[in-house]
Amino acid sequence: MAQAYWQAEVMAEASFSLFVRRLPTNRGYLVFAGLEDILDALNGLHFSEGDITSLRSMGLFDEGFLEYLADLRFTGRVRAMPEATVFFANEPVLEVTAPVIEAQVVETLLMNLFNTHTMLATKAARVVEAADGRTVVDFAARRTQGIDAAIKFARASYISGFAGTSNVLAAGRYGIPAVGTMAHSFITSFDSELEAFDSYAASFPDNSTFLVDTYDTMEGISNAVVVAKRMREQGHELNAIRLDSGDLLALSFEARAMLDAAGMRSVQVLASGGLDEFEIERLLRNGGAIDGFGVGTNVGTSADYPWLDCVYKMVEYDGKPTMKLSEDKETLVGVKQVFRRVDADCKYAGDVMGFADEPTPDGTEALLSDVMRDGKRLQDASSLDELRERCSRELERLPAHCRRIRSPHEYPVGVSERLEARQRQVKQDLLRRIAGTE
Amino acid sequence: MAQAYWQAEVMAEASFSLFVRRLPTNRGYLVFAGLEDILDALNGLHFSEGDITSLRSMGLFDEGFLEYLADLRFTGRVRAMPEATVFFANEPVLEVTAPVIEAQVVETLLMNLFNTHTMLATKAARVVEAADGRTVVDFAARRTQGIDAAIKFARASYISGFAGTSNVLAAGRYGIPAVGTMAHSFITSFDSELEAFDSYAASFPDNSTFLVDTYDTMEGISNAVVVAKRMREQGHELNAIRLDSGDLLALSFEARAMLDAAGMRSVQVLASGGLDEFEIERLLRNGGAIDGFGVGTNVGTSADYPWLDCVYKMVEYDGKPTMKLSEDKETLVGVKQVFRRVDADCKYAGDVMGFADEPTPDGTEALLSDVMRDGKRLQDASSLDELRERCSRELERLPAHCRRIRSPHEYPVGVSERLEARQRQVKQDLLRRIAGTE
Repeated sequence: MAQAYWQAEVMAEASFSLFVRRLPTNRGYLVFAGLEDILDALNGLHFSEGDITSLRSMGLFDEGFLEYLADLRFTGRVRAMPEATVFFANEPVLEVTAPVIEAQVVETLLMNLFNTHTMLATKAARVVEAADGRTVVDFAARRTQGIDAAIKFARASYISGFAGTSNVLAAGRYGIPAVGTMAHSFITSFDSELEAFDSYAASFPDNSTFLVDTYDTMEGISNAVVVAKRMREQGHELNAIRLDSGDLLALSFEARAMLDAAGMRSVQVLASGGLDEFEIERLLRNGGAIDGFGVGTNVGTSADYPWLDCVYKMVEYDGKPTMKLSEDKETLVGVKQVFRRVDADCKYAGDVMGFADEPTPDGTEALLSDVMRDGKRLQDASSLDELRERCSRELERLPAHCRRIRSPHEYPVGVSERLEARQRQVKQDLLRRIAGTE
Repeated sequence: MAQAYWQAEVMAEASFSLFVRRLPTNRGYLVFAGLEDILDALNGLHFSEGDITSLRSMGLFDEGFLEYLADLRFTGRVRAMPEATVFFANEPVLEVTAPVIEAQVVETLLMNLFNTHTMLATKAARVVEAADGRTVVDFAARRTQGIDAAIKFARASYISGFAGTSNVLAAGRYGIPAVGTMAHSFITSFDSELEAFDSYAASFPDNSTFLVDTYDTMEGISNAVVVAKRMREQGHELNAIRLDSGDLLALSFEARAMLDAAGMRSVQVLASGGLDEFEIERLLRNGGAIDGFGVGTNVGTSADYPWLDCVYKMVEYDGKPTMKLSEDKETLVGVKQVFRRVDADCKYAGDVMGFADEPTPDGTEALLSDVMRDGKRLQDASSLDELRERCSRELERLPAHCRRIRSPHEYPVGVSERLEARQRQVKQDLLRRIAGTE
């Protein structure tokens, strides 16, 4: 496609808008994540000698075009919402204005990064909401869709409020707290569960969590209590036990009772195994005696809805508004802005999409701002802790009924008068042109 | 966990088994993929200086242990089914025998690679089955869960029988045929659809597919016919038109009729947009006039079931069989083999899991063989085309009722007498030990 542009000398500046057409089922909002990776990718955009050789070997490309590609860098402008902002269906989250080939060749990369980070950050935020103040940690790395996704999930879930990750690689890369996990194989490599717990306690005297379901959960809790008492005699405290199978609700009551009876009130009960926001909410609604959750596969793949209906659409070419009319997929024309109304309690009260050059209406905040100009980043990267704080603040400002994990209310998003009028006019012109009456 | 092993001097040889506990809904089989990546990962296993520094900075690890890690390489033995073999629930696909820490530290990496490749290869094989001989190509890269997943999907889907990929990076890396796609933005950057088609045809005179739904699909098909006639006058043929929205079934009839009426019988009708194996089956059952399919998000994320219930469990430690008893999660002990019965028609007729040292029963094939010894690969990597042929042969040999995309029959998998007896005995011993009667 880029070659067809190049050969037709279609090289003018174009603007593209990145947005989500429909929110996934049960989502009342999305958490924008991935901006840092997107900016890094745009910044580093180039085709290496190896890439060019590989493209040449396909026999599809003109030599002049390959030379053009070898020199291609991203020189455009990017406007975006800050990373960790909450947003809604149809709102432009990020807009690119650049020579059309540059803006086009980054489509797949940009959409993929946006989709992965944002979907995972949103799923994680829902889990944090369901956990209602209890600790949640990331155990997903074994079954995410690729190693890349595991690292992104560790980052995205930390932004959304997780306490740590078992993914040591991601912990090191991003400075996320690492949480140790003990697998069943650790237990089965010892002659007895007691011996396995003793050994683990010797290695991590102040930071141990015992997995108690390898053979028989009730017996496992008893063994944990035995070892916890030995630890206490030596001046250490067991941190937690972890339930990983069976009826987690019933077992949590038993575990809590046994620990309390043994004077181990400070030892936490953690739960894991097939959890997601729906199951966590059910456990807590039924009074589950659970202090923290380890979540894996269902959350790390956003299993109930493993993608976003995101698109990257041309909204302006060579100064003229463009749109796609395909059934149910009509796009809003022009370079846009999102104005967010804030009420007296500092809560978000509704958004209006307008043109980027419209004045910001009173009582609203304009969400998109320049983050890249002439292909150069304008700000330093935000730290992960800044993003985490922003995300927490954003979710607080969102009305509670939009945060519900089932059947949330729809947050109101409208279109400015100017945008609506222009949209109507461009559409009429297009329809006339298609009908050949122009 | 590795540190706890190290400190407790638990360093003996262990065997781990990689298998899938339950097949995902509607799956009658799985296609094993990812072996090449797994062997590469084991081969390259090491902790770099940067990794060690990062681990040290977490403050959790003993200096002696970090020194041990810095020298750690994978020195074990791996037995596996050949990549592209079909397999079923509970069957060991790959087994690792190595000093326990080595075997343990590779768990996450190994499971992640296996899960991603195998899930995606299986999903793609189902699409090929549904497409019933028609061409299928990969359009998924925009919305897979990470760039990594996009590349893996391009590879896995080619093994499973896709004809090509729009992922130029993957096409170059693996030598997969690249298929061009035109986006709606290409159309909207021109003053008219006709002009856009003309330009594309000029760039790819013998390899053009026109996307016809940007404004109005019927009008788009008319425009495609106009340009196809111009191409024909110049000695070229339009390859195809592509429908990407609306009622694909109804539009396929209209498109076919209009193309045929214009003498364009050789111009193919392709369909894309939200397709998966279920929708493709529905379109074809209803006689859809569609010659090929482009599949994206739903297939590239295995959206109806975006993970495998795969596990990596210790089955032997220091020569002794081990097992986990957790509710519904009991594992089979010992280093195993899968014997596959082949009937007179060369079809697969049932599998038996036994110990690796059992003699291969008459009329069966033993599926696992050594692929790595002392940390070294024993064979050269298979070419992608070899894997593709093997996959095709494997699926042919599988009974048709096991290949159905809805409610497939369960393929019979049993356990050898020796394995069954030993399993019972180990379990009894364990239960006795837990009950404290031993």
